[in-house]
Amino acid sequence: MKIAVAQLNYTIGDFEGNKAKIVASVERAKGDGADLVVFCEEAVSGAFAYDLLNKVTFLELCEDVLEEVAPHCDTIAALVGTPIASDRTTVSAAALLRNGKIERYIGRHTVTGRDDVGHLRPGKGGECVDIAGKRVAVLVGEDVFAGNSSKYGNKADVIVSLITDAYKRHNIDNRYNFYRKLSYMSGIPVVYANMVGGNTDVVFDGSSAVFNGQGHALRLLRSFDEDYAVVDLAAPNEPVEIPYISKNPTIYNAIKLGLKDFFAKNGFKTACIGLSGGIDSAVVAAIAVDALGVENVRALMLPSQFSSDHSVEDAVLMAERLGMQYNVVPITEAYKTITDSLKPVIGGLPFDVTEENIQSRIRCVMLMALSNKYGCVLLNTTNKSEEAVGYGTLYGDCVGVISVLGDLYKREVFELARYLNRDTEVIPENILVKEPSAELRPEQKDTDFLPPYDVVDAILFRMFEEGQHREEIVNAGFEANVVYKIHAMVMKNEQKRYQFCPVLRMSICPLGKGRVMPLTSKYGY
Amino acid sequence: MKIAVAQLNYTIGDFEGNKAKIVASVERAKGDGADLVVFCEEAVSGAFAYDLLNKVTFLELCEDVLEEVAPHCDTIAALVGTPIASDRTTVSAAALLRNGKIERYIGRHTVTGRDDVGHLRPGKGGECVDIAGKRVAVLVGEDVFAGNSSKYGNKADVIVSLITDAYKRHNIDNRYNFYRKLSYMSGIPVVYANMVGGNTDVVFDGSSAVFNGQGHALRLLRSFDEDYAVVDLAAPNEPVEIPYISKNPTIYNAIKLGLKDFFAKNGFKTACIGLSGGIDSAVVAAIAVDALGVENVRALMLPSQFSSDHSVEDAVLMAERLGMQYNVVPITEAYKTITDSLKPVIGGLPFDVTEENIQSRIRCVMLMALSNKYGCVLLNTTNKSEEAVGYGTLYGDCVGVISVLGDLYKREVFELARYLNRDTEVIPENILVKEPSAELRPEQKDTDFLPPYDVVDAILFRMFEEGQHREEIVNAGFEANVVYKIHAMVMKNEQKRYQFCPVLRMSICPLGKGRVMPLTSKYGY
Repeated sequence: MKIAVAQLNYTIGDFEGNKAKIVASVERAKGDGADLVVFCEEAVSGAFAYDLLNKVTFLELCEDVLEEVAPHCDTIAALVGTPIASDRTTVSAAALLRNGKIERYIGRHTVTGRDDVGHLRPGKGGECVDIAGKRVAVLVGEDVFAGNSSKYGNKADVIVSLITDAYKRHNIDNRYNFYRKLSYMSGIPVVYANMVGGNTDVVFDGSSAVFNGQGHALRLLRSFDEDYAVVDLAAPNEPVEIPYISKNPTIYNAIKLGLKDFFAKNGFKTACIGLSGGIDSAVVAAIAVDALGVENVRALMLPSQFSSDHSVEDAVLMAERLGMQYNVVPITEAYKTITDSLKPVIGGLPFDVTEENIQSRIRCVMLMALSNKYGCVLLNTTNKSEEAVGYGTLYGDCVGVISVLGDLYKREVFELARYLNRDTEVIPENILVKEPSAELRPEQKDTDFLPPYDVVDAILFRMFEEGQHREEIVNAGFEANVVYKIHAMVMKNEQKRYQFCPVLRMSICPLGKGRVMPLTSKYGY
Repeated sequence: MKIAVAQLNYTIGDFEGNKAKIVASVERAKGDGADLVVFCEEAVSGAFAYDLLNKVTFLELCEDVLEEVAPHCDTIAALVGTPIASDRTTVSAAALLRNGKIERYIGRHTVTGRDDVGHLRPGKGGECVDIAGKRVAVLVGEDVFAGNSSKYGNKADVIVSLITDAYKRHNIDNRYNFYRKLSYMSGIPVVYANMVGGNTDVVFDGSSAVFNGQGHALRLLRSFDEDYAVVDLAAPNEPVEIPYISKNPTIYNAIKLGLKDFFAKNGFKTACIGLSGGIDSAVVAAIAVDALGVENVRALMLPSQFSSDHSVEDAVLMAERLGMQYNVVPITEAYKTITDSLKPVIGGLPFDVTEENIQSRIRCVMLMALSNKYGCVLLNTTNKSEEAVGYGTLYGDCVGVISVLGDLYKREVFELARYLNRDTEVIPENILVKEPSAELRPEQKDTDFLPPYDVVDAILFRMFEEGQHREEIVNAGFEANVVYKIHAMVMKNEQKRYQFCPVLRMSICPLGKGRVMPLTSKYGY
């Protein structure tokens, strides 16, 4: 049996575009003499479509696409992921197209993913179909990961898995391992097609693959790009080696693709960014220039009286190295006028976080003015550590349409900066070595209230990524008062995160929409 | 059989407080000689607790509460709603406390509500227990609404329903009707206990009740307040009449309770607000003064060069009538300084939405400064019509910690204003009769781009509340180009709504978190 895998980048609701891609791959697979061509879950619609999945018109348009793809499936069978209306609910299904028509749908049963629950309902799941004389177990979405999929070794000749499995740190290797084991345990070949591309805050990495029944990879499709492969499972196939997945280049590629697709698919062209001279905005600028082109990224430097000289210098050096358009607009006058205007209200009281936030919020006014006037999209530069403990000003530096680094801890931002500098120094060394500071009052340092980021990040990682309780973290050797302080800061800032922009997701526990907490709660554990 | 219903206002994670309330009601019911006392769903935890429901410590603390309540249940049985750990997932259950201990749990089966899916899993559901010689069908949460609950008429002597059913327009009458029919169809008495109180954006109205087996109400507990009732189902009971639920006072009470609890339960005391002289901020101010006390609400009037004289005058008149503390802080100087500073960036280009937004965002800087300096919570004043079509400036007038009117159409805000003025003129008549305008450029009116709100609201209502397609709305007699324009504006502004604060929910289709749309999408239907 000859199977083709088409790994494509779909856009939600772009039915014409998605259809054209699917048809082109069907034709290519026919040309290659394949018996079956496999597409990912929700290929027709794009994923994740959320509430659109419950709109009748949306589902009808999905069916229209399949009706138009079906005539191309004359000498070939195709399995195409699509949402379908089923008993007044919506089910994620694989459409089997054959003999020029939609022959049947195989629904997905397991619905537990946060992006699916509430939008999809369980279908029947786990069915076998006969294609080219072979028994094919068709597993849609999570069904392959739930329960014991290796049982299909007794019922089928091959397992075909259609997924939309988003990128998360270590997810590519974990996924390879899962399918490797599945093929070994079931003793039959396993083929899986994953989505590739960015949609809002989600990045699908692709990395589809074909394994033989001995747990060896026969084909590995590209990560973070469209790809296509065809394998004759009856012919002798040389196994390919599963490569080591290096962390920083992978995260870099994930963010770059996410950013690029966010712009391309929304019809945005240009971006703007506030360059502070700190590491976060420097890394965002460097990635944005790579993803969007230097002519499409524009910066403002917005120094206040508390900004150190080196901050503006470093930011300017960075912008000039990259070749970005930039302006230096001091906010000193605006700060003075606003605090003067507010004298009848807040005058006479000592300088505190109010005045710090005024500076940060004036920068928001300036950046949004640039954004409004030229139609460029403001990029958020907050990192996960800041977002967690609530550093950053609501309606100040927390603003932006999309957060580029919001799912990376501060340490990871440093690692990424070093990676960006691997060949030539893109980010001035001075930015990498200086102590992190918001520079909103004299001599301010991020370490004024908390220990260095190495410690903060280790605690946050245990808290979020590992789900550890405070006691466990203290028992692991961290100072109790620091752990409790950080925990209290995390809990206190749910409200700020509620209003945060979408964050390109890189982990199993993105903050923001990935963490749903009541804002009114006395729970403190 | 004598049944008591305790309708209480719980706080999420306030285990001591919730326990004290539950124990007090158990003791009261014992004093009244009741066989059974019924509490609402998730009484121990408070609702909706979202991701807290999957924290082991949270569930353990819920169980601790029940362990401490149980000894009080010696001569009485109690049904208390609580989340429980069950097979590595969390189920919403009724704990049956009797003979001084936790006797058993009856789980809830149906989980479809958006606030529950992803946090709760289905339990067994729909079980009967024997209490005081009677067979009691115990239905937790949605189970009573799903499927044919009247079948319990054949199996049980009484139906007890524990719910957390939030307020939505017409939900109180609909709920009365549902239970009235259920008691009539099943032919046995029905008792239901609902939660009361606000939690973040949700308001539970209470309105618990007892019906006899002939579809007559025997007791109606208060709406929007704690209450308690005891009924001897064996004794002759005079039916009570179900009152007509008038819309405006009900919405007013719902918003007032939601606002009051948002402050009380979060430990907030004071609020601040920007008073523009328009109707939305006037209505928010009047409700806030009622809910929080006039000494706890403070206003800023922030006129720009485009503000009409009457705006400040009307706002001042309003504040003085209410007796609120206020300051008038013109933003003219700040606007000039900021646009001057930005001359190298945006100078020479014609006045457009950029300059409008700068004014709105300066107001945000001023209001947040007041909020930061005095620790008062900024109230958002956006209404549902504006939020839908994207009127309002992101990081400008869209800001705030909680949106008071965000689930009311503009027409409803006018109705509420008339209701507030029912006895004395709280809101100056001039504010009610002037034409809506953002006053961000000369002679601006809300009707410059769209028809009057009567038309806009009717179209939006059909779109959201009735789920009508554009074609249906056009066929109902609305101008096609207006319908298409409004629809396009709604779709374009998902991104703005993504960063919106929580909205006190008054309908079945609150925008914001109640509407989950991909921000990257080409879907335009």
